[in-house]
Amino acid sequence: MALRLSPVFDVIVGSREKDKAELTCRLGIETLKNRGTACSLTGVSNQDAVDSAEVVILAIPFKHLAGTLEGLHGFENKIVISPVNPMEKRDHFTFVPPVEGSAALMVKRLLPPTARICSAFNTIAANKWKALDEELAYSVPVCGDDAEAKRQVMDIVNRISRLQAFDAGPLAASSMVEALTPLLLNIARYNKMRDVGIQFR
Amino acid sequence: MALRLSPVFDVIVGSREKDKAELTCRLGIETLKNRGTACSLTGVSNQDAVDSAEVVILAIPFKHLAGTLEGLHGFENKIVISPVNPMEKRDHFTFVPPVEGSAALMVKRLLPPTARICSAFNTIAANKWKALDEELAYSVPVCGDDAEAKRQVMDIVNRISRLQAFDAGPLAASSMVEALTPLLLNIARYNKMRDVGIQFR
Repeated sequence: MALRLSPVFDVIVGSREKDKAELTCRLGIETLKNRGTACSLTGVSNQDAVDSAEVVILAIPFKHLAGTLEGLHGFENKIVISPVNPMEKRDHFTFVPPVEGSAALMVKRLLPPTARICSAFNTIAANKWKALDEELAYSVPVCGDDAEAKRQVMDIVNRISRLQAFDAGPLAASSMVEALTPLLLNIARYNKMRDVGIQFR
Repeated sequence: MALRLSPVFDVIVGSREKDKAELTCRLGIETLKNRGTACSLTGVSNQDAVDSAEVVILAIPFKHLAGTLEGLHGFENKIVISPVNPMEKRDHFTFVPPVEGSAALMVKRLLPPTARICSAFNTIAANKWKALDEELAYSVPVCGDDAEAKRQVMDIVNRISRLQAFDAGPLAASSMVEALTPLLLNIARYNKMRDVGIQFR
């Protein structure tokens, strides 16, 4: 995700281990440089990333989400994007939401009430982010309760490759967005496709 | 749906009121005839439809699903397609599954164990079925536990306009398909679109 965002935005990558974030960013800068692409990419600790960023993307597996957020502070008034999909692989992939109903609503409960939470980027597979030669011609549903924050998140989405943002309603509607990802994983698996994205039309 | 299916398959429309089914079919035949399209379309009672059909499509709103099925018999060994989406309109459209987890799993509980249940056609809006001048260039996820029944349902899907069937896994995965429809209704509403469909790619 950082490889796609850092040519367009100043990207600060946070990690529990600052060294790991720095290494990841050095490799990312190198990758983009070899393609002749300038970028802005800095590796720091998770807390430094939250403190420095205007918009925080919680690119964390669901199982680490609560633990990570509980160790961090400073989310007041920030735009926070949840791309997180709570799911499990049983014999097929299944949407397994937390008691709040969705990962996005769990984030809302864990963060201060002034945090401006949106869900976005849920259905873009990691391999798609990495495949820099491929255009990302996909639809991205965006949910949120803060209209201005949602507009900004949709603008961010629309500036990346050929992603197209769609307003998918309030944050409470995120469960239906998060359930899309295990559906897409099942479709990839049962139809022998590599990675599956969606377009609304 | 009958307007799109009856030029390709023998379609028997069932209704609680046989007269209503007959009238609907006369109007449908007329509509298609005016377009120079031959069709096979017959209106009967719900029970006669179940008795005569090889494949039964439960094109019923969720709130009438249990009541309708409880009054019918003869589903043994039949292929039964559920396009039903249990949802409610609160301030936005929301997926509200029954205790079984999905409409498709509720159908499974209500029908005899030999019924071969698949979910399909969940995300094709009524207006799209009706707009005979428009091609239906959409993806259709199909779930089911009976591999041969699922293959037949996918074949039916693939013979209608430009619909493309995708195997979306076992019947237990239907909840994620049914949740797509309220998501699409929200996207239509919040982005001022008329009817929204999906393509997997």
